[in-house]
Amino acid sequence: MPDYVEGKRPVIEAMRTDVPLKKILLADNAKREPMLEDIRRKARQRDIPVILVPRAELDEKSARGSHQGVMAETKPFPYVGVGDIVGDANAYADAHDGRALIVVCDHITDAGNLGAIIRSAESVGASGLIIPNKRSGRVEASTYKSSAGAVAHLPISQTANIPSTLDRLKKDGFWACAATEHSQNELWDVNLKGKIALVVGNEHDGVSHLVLEHCDMAGRLPMMGQVGSLNVAQAATACMYEWLRQNW
Amino acid sequence: MPDYVEGKRPVIEAMRTDVPLKKILLADNAKREPMLEDIRRKARQRDIPVILVPRAELDEKSARGSHQGVMAETKPFPYVGVGDIVGDANAYADAHDGRALIVVCDHITDAGNLGAIIRSAESVGASGLIIPNKRSGRVEASTYKSSAGAVAHLPISQTANIPSTLDRLKKDGFWACAATEHSQNELWDVNLKGKIALVVGNEHDGVSHLVLEHCDMAGRLPMMGQVGSLNVAQAATACMYEWLRQNW
Repeated sequence: MPDYVEGKRPVIEAMRTDVPLKKILLADNAKREPMLEDIRRKARQRDIPVILVPRAELDEKSARGSHQGVMAETKPFPYVGVGDIVGDANAYADAHDGRALIVVCDHITDAGNLGAIIRSAESVGASGLIIPNKRSGRVEASTYKSSAGAVAHLPISQTANIPSTLDRLKKDGFWACAATEHSQNELWDVNLKGKIALVVGNEHDGVSHLVLEHCDMAGRLPMMGQVGSLNVAQAATACMYEWLRQNW
Repeated sequence: MPDYVEGKRPVIEAMRTDVPLKKILLADNAKREPMLEDIRRKARQRDIPVILVPRAELDEKSARGSHQGVMAETKPFPYVGVGDIVGDANAYADAHDGRALIVVCDHITDAGNLGAIIRSAESVGASGLIIPNKRSGRVEASTYKSSAGAVAHLPISQTANIPSTLDRLKKDGFWACAATEHSQNELWDVNLKGKIALVVGNEHDGVSHLVLEHCDMAGRLPMMGQVGSLNVAQAATACMYEWLRQNW
């Protein structure tokens, strides 16, 4: 099922943040007005076809009923296979004293958090990101914005099963480390040298029990305050830089 | 000038996230409808006065023209003095092997980023946050949400002048360290032991030249990717946990 961006401002924003668009659907009875003209002009500059359709077709495709006479169909995100990421990571390790990082997201649900993690992963030199193909945020138009465009530079793979993917990564020479507040060890006391699969958990429940059982090790960021929770993307960033520090 | 939250959903959200509210202004000609009834009920539960006013008064007070017949006036945020934060930090240092952290934000403009930094600062055990009183994001209703409520637990001070505040903190025994990509040193090679004032910069320009001149030291988080920028709140979180690591 294709993904759509709906509404005038969101469609303009999608073009501004370089979301790959397949085509733009415009209601054939839409009035001429500045924002729609702007959309037509920007689409022409980017070689994105603009197709006139009956408004009823937009109503039918619209998930939120907020299309305002215009929707953009996004190109499917080019997910790669886990094997591609492993290959990249091994090549990276060869060129960087043996260090490589793959980030595994155990059911991050918020697309904004996913984008923020992608941005930091790309900054730290991770070779790729792995997400589940169900019950998880996935790459959509908003991810381009929240990742500041990094989503176009980081290979991302969808997997049906995180535990078996971790087993596979371990066979390929990675150490799987979970970032979890339930660990007894501070993350900086965990040996993160070399090829690491860093597992970060869901916004509410953290890394699941089953996934934890497939990790070699675990570490926590101490919580010293009264609120006692970090945003998952902030926590993931601190963990990724700890990996980089240990391998520097 | 008081701060207002305007519109039905935003007012409900403000109550849900415990933004301290002084009163709720309701248009005297507003129709009875479920969301307004919900606002009245929640306000009653929280002892927030609901005052009927002519709709014209809301139009006049409204900054965005999106009040939908209801606005909430927030209580002024209880900023503390820099001296209060220093006092707290010294007491914290006495109880924690000499470590203390004050986070100084050099003109962070986005209220969401400010809230995210506040959340992480509170998590890492910082004693307070210092922001400029001009050209800077400040604590507003949205900060309660983006800080996940941590704003109610972290002392925050506004200052007219960041450089002179840094000089003052240095006299009080703090080392001022800027997090800046222009540094030659990796942050983990900088000595962050003890009482540290961590300076983080604006979203676009980073830490300003003038502020840098008043810092004792500076460190960077290496950027290994192609996009080459971290979100300021992500970067600040990684830096704060590096302070905690060195002091653990």
